[in-house]
Amino acid sequence: MTSAAPLVLTLGDPAGVGPELIAAAWARRVEDGPNGLGLSPFFAMGGAELIAAAAASRGLSVPIERIASPAQAAEVFPHALPVLGDLDGAYTPGEPNREGAALALASLSLAARLTVEGEASAIVTAPIHKARLAEVGFVHPGQTEFVAAASGVAAEDAVMMLAGPTLRTVPLTVHTSLASVPGLITPELVERRSAITAAALARDFGLPSPRLAIAALNPHAGEEGRMGDEESRLIEPAIAALRARGIDATGPHPADALFAERARATYDVAICMYHDQALIPLKALDFDQGVNVTLGLPIIRTSPDHGTAFAIAGRNIADAGATIAAIRMAGDCAARRAQAAIPA
Amino acid sequence: MTSAAPLVLTLGDPAGVGPELIAAAWARRVEDGPNGLGLSPFFAMGGAELIAAAAASRGLSVPIERIASPAQAAEVFPHALPVLGDLDGAYTPGEPNREGAALALASLSLAARLTVEGEASAIVTAPIHKARLAEVGFVHPGQTEFVAAASGVAAEDAVMMLAGPTLRTVPLTVHTSLASVPGLITPELVERRSAITAAALARDFGLPSPRLAIAALNPHAGEEGRMGDEESRLIEPAIAALRARGIDATGPHPADALFAERARATYDVAICMYHDQALIPLKALDFDQGVNVTLGLPIIRTSPDHGTAFAIAGRNIADAGATIAAIRMAGDCAARRAQAAIPA
Repeated sequence: MTSAAPLVLTLGDPAGVGPELIAAAWARRVEDGPNGLGLSPFFAMGGAELIAAAAASRGLSVPIERIASPAQAAEVFPHALPVLGDLDGAYTPGEPNREGAALALASLSLAARLTVEGEASAIVTAPIHKARLAEVGFVHPGQTEFVAAASGVAAEDAVMMLAGPTLRTVPLTVHTSLASVPGLITPELVERRSAITAAALARDFGLPSPRLAIAALNPHAGEEGRMGDEESRLIEPAIAALRARGIDATGPHPADALFAERARATYDVAICMYHDQALIPLKALDFDQGVNVTLGLPIIRTSPDHGTAFAIAGRNIADAGATIAAIRMAGDCAARRAQAAIPA
Repeated sequence: MTSAAPLVLTLGDPAGVGPELIAAAWARRVEDGPNGLGLSPFFAMGGAELIAAAAASRGLSVPIERIASPAQAAEVFPHALPVLGDLDGAYTPGEPNREGAALALASLSLAARLTVEGEASAIVTAPIHKARLAEVGFVHPGQTEFVAAASGVAAEDAVMMLAGPTLRTVPLTVHTSLASVPGLITPELVERRSAITAAALARDFGLPSPRLAIAALNPHAGEEGRMGDEESRLIEPAIAALRARGIDATGPHPADALFAERARATYDVAICMYHDQALIPLKALDFDQGVNVTLGLPIIRTSPDHGTAFAIAGRNIADAGATIAAIRMAGDCAARRAQAAIPA
């Protein structure tokens, strides 16, 4: 029964804020959220001693109980944080090392497999340090590409969406220089990722006819070609193609006005041309609550939209808001899929 | 006596929201602002009948009194909106035409001259339609360049700053394609405009040691060259030069995190590399209150940070917040200059 499967949380880099935020999230499992519900049952993929030490560093009293299978998580969750298996390591906040990277990779790999197999209803990944993970054999640019590969989807069809309480954005290009962005935008890229986004919002976010606002690349949307022509050459054809497919896509919208309060009320997601165009408004408005969710996969994957934060790990400073929001979103999406799977 | 000189407001395009917002601002002249003061006395440069019609379109009862010289404005201001001279035209909201553009240009030209001559302590410009103004002989890209020329400053040394209640940003490049931005950033540009900004914040904004946060161009500030090298090649040398001059400049900061609430508390102004980097956060956070102020001039010039809004002119929809904020900022800056001019 997929509907009863718990969420799985990965440890992330054990020198970062991941372990302490798992403990902090469990401690707040019964608090009311925006929808009046507590958090869905989850378990951590390994790290029983690690999380206990991390919890102690925040002054949290978090009983931890090892489980032998995901099916045990729901029963344990109300009174203890369930941790699956014996995978574990030393807690060295602020001091990343090779062993920690290997632990992070093992937790991620096992958790992804459980999710693909349906033993977990969604995977919530904690932050990793990409360069260190690469040293221990991680061949992907990031966790998004890893979970795509684990679930059999081409990396270019795994769409990153950032979501906060007031805004959802999709950056079509991400970790690339600003100078390279105009050359990477194509009508096919805009159309394909927008369509994946629309389908995912319909399936997992309760938005049967999602409204997509496509941002322009140039200031003032190029002002009819006076400041760049990517809008007419590349973006407008994609919008026309999306509309022809019955998708409610509008634009290209001048990006500066697109994130003002009144404008935000007119769409469900903003499709952005580059990293900072998507991330500046999200972090300005929803800094500690941003969730990174991967669309277009057979599995559900969310993540808090922040890094390892080595500098503040173990100091009871890191805000658990984004982790809690990521857990809540994963639970909501999983519940929608479970509901849809029930025969009428 | 500079201290007693009133502010001058230009009409802007008479088919736009400029005239009605002058009337709306006057109607709210005695409301308490954030600093507990009403608005400094101002007069409109022409447009007595135009403004009367615009006021009527908003249902405002605004008595208008023609004045023959700026010196009369302060006495009239408490009981009527002072309008200087006989310059006037038809009120045709939403229907821009050649006569209106000529009127806007005349109002702007006369107001700039009065400010340069010291008969007005600052100029607050209403929105114009650049393409239409060009048809009647306006040779500048925008009003910023016009007021620079009118006050004898090279256009490249007139620095545009956007300021809202929660954020100030300076875009180093503005109306140019995104693809052209990397080629326009130079260490000299960053250093010169940052220094002008620092001097203006000290002189006019009561910030003797302003903190400048210099944004990166690339995502994650290029991550040590992995996503672009403009940070190390162009921006870091400028920051070093600024610091050597005693200016409190930091960066290059990853732009996505720079506008989050906690980050904003660490600087007085963000120096941005391109239009949308500066405008997205400002409009997301301070949409109806953004002021465009020109730094580096011998005169004080502010403007509401919005366009003519032809589509909503005359319909009692346009928000007067940005116009009022522009008037307030002009008055505050003028008061600081007047105070500084008093011999100790």
